[in-house]
Amino acid sequence: MREAIRFVEVGPRDGLQNLAAPVSTALKARLCEKLFAAGVCRLECASFVSPAHVPQMADAEALLAAISPPDGAELDALAPNARGALRAVATRADRISVFVAATQSFAQRNTRCSIEQCLERAGEVRKIASGAGRQTRGYVSCIADCPYEGLVPTRAVMHVARALIHAGFDEIALGDTIGSTSPADMRRLLRALKQEIPVARLAVHCHDTYGMAAASTLAAIEEGVRIVDGAVAGLGGCPFAPGAAGNAASEDLVFMLEGLGFDTGIDCLALAETGRWLTRELGLSNASRTGPALLARPITARPAEF
Amino acid sequence: MREAIRFVEVGPRDGLQNLAAPVSTALKARLCEKLFAAGVCRLECASFVSPAHVPQMADAEALLAAISPPDGAELDALAPNARGALRAVATRADRISVFVAATQSFAQRNTRCSIEQCLERAGEVRKIASGAGRQTRGYVSCIADCPYEGLVPTRAVMHVARALIHAGFDEIALGDTIGSTSPADMRRLLRALKQEIPVARLAVHCHDTYGMAAASTLAAIEEGVRIVDGAVAGLGGCPFAPGAAGNAASEDLVFMLEGLGFDTGIDCLALAETGRWLTRELGLSNASRTGPALLARPITARPAEF
Repeated sequence: MREAIRFVEVGPRDGLQNLAAPVSTALKARLCEKLFAAGVCRLECASFVSPAHVPQMADAEALLAAISPPDGAELDALAPNARGALRAVATRADRISVFVAATQSFAQRNTRCSIEQCLERAGEVRKIASGAGRQTRGYVSCIADCPYEGLVPTRAVMHVARALIHAGFDEIALGDTIGSTSPADMRRLLRALKQEIPVARLAVHCHDTYGMAAASTLAAIEEGVRIVDGAVAGLGGCPFAPGAAGNAASEDLVFMLEGLGFDTGIDCLALAETGRWLTRELGLSNASRTGPALLARPITARPAEF
Repeated sequence: MREAIRFVEVGPRDGLQNLAAPVSTALKARLCEKLFAAGVCRLECASFVSPAHVPQMADAEALLAAISPPDGAELDALAPNARGALRAVATRADRISVFVAATQSFAQRNTRCSIEQCLERAGEVRKIASGAGRQTRGYVSCIADCPYEGLVPTRAVMHVARALIHAGFDEIALGDTIGSTSPADMRRLLRALKQEIPVARLAVHCHDTYGMAAASTLAAIEEGVRIVDGAVAGLGGCPFAPGAAGNAASEDLVFMLEGLGFDTGIDCLALAETGRWLTRELGLSNASRTGPALLARPITARPAEF
């Protein structure tokens, strides 16, 4: 009996939100279907943000209406404020998520609010979501590095994470928005956070700008984290984090996690095929390394004693 | 006082050997100069292999004559057999290295010998090198996966590593030729090897085909390994391992290792500049993620208590 990792595929939201060319609701729905067929059981698929702010996410309601997740699978959606949360709870979203940056500058650029105002909004989102019987996730963004302020002190991340827990969020996701979080940063931060927050409620969400995403996720796993985010084909990037690269590629993380003996429930080859299909459909390059390698030469899992 | 990592830059050898277009000796010498200026203190720069076999390495003697490493810096060179070793010891090479594959099929394709014949040749190289007062490294290639045989049993790697130690090699390098070694594979293998070989004599040499190079190197570091290979700009690939990607990018590894608190002696930004210069000179894409990210926005090292 292998230990489970709850793998959160964020491709349909974080992977697509930053693309200039519009992606049709039908294509997004097809992507979600393929991801579920590959074994994904938690999918962040939409953002109930203002369409003027992030046009790519304008079809959130339509997409959620178009998806039929298999039994036991969950749909996550972002909502930046009460207005978004009210839209989200009118859909079948199982979990509502909200972002709060660890630095004032990023909070201002991303949401035109101070950290304290963001936390207040987050509290409103949490109440609406919980009131409607939905799960909640609070992201802390810029957990190690901010494009405007540079290195982020551990205490700044602790402040936001603590406030989100006190506001009643079920889960705290550590967002390495800039993609420069090294395994050492991740370990240091988690060791501090675990003193106050049960590790079962912590998730990691790495970007791969500095090539550290797999190594930093490994460090998080070694610290006891069991909820891990990735985006198929390593797509993504934040509209408000210039220069940041895409998310950790799901194919690479699933390959690593299954190799470590965890059960993600995901068929890595089917995920690789989905990444190839999606990048071809969108005319994008595939940032996953495992995906193309596995498609070129499928390799089998190593038995424990080989 | 930070603990030191001996970082072995293999770009001038493993990074260039597989390129179709010839690289001039002058350009290689300039590359070595830049790498030394960035703080590299161990450089694998040439291979005394038959020019018919690997034309890119035909200028081994000329290159070694053209390089002036700073005080305390070392030059490594490969020699596949006694003939190569005799050529190598006639130069200023500080260390002579030899490869032995962990599988019969790879040994045959790469060297047209069985594993036992390769080990015999390796023993001859070791004697010639030690007799001339040089250090020696024995690589075990295909440590987890072979393009012809698939998964490689741990006992097969142990057999070759043990034979190389018994043959008197100073150092054993674990070569992840195919680039599919996951952190779990690396940890399992090192735990077995450490029962027979002091970890101070073990080095790791990862390729990044599956995006695991940084994570697997991290696992090796956690197991006590302190000698780490990489190639600037992630260049490289084995002529006899179809589909395998380049080496672990030195920029990414140095960024990670310095972040972990180790002293590599290397200026990561200068390394990044060298990678940019080299890939532009050769018209190649840069496979390092840290390199371009760091050049776009240099970030400072995190103080221990921040």
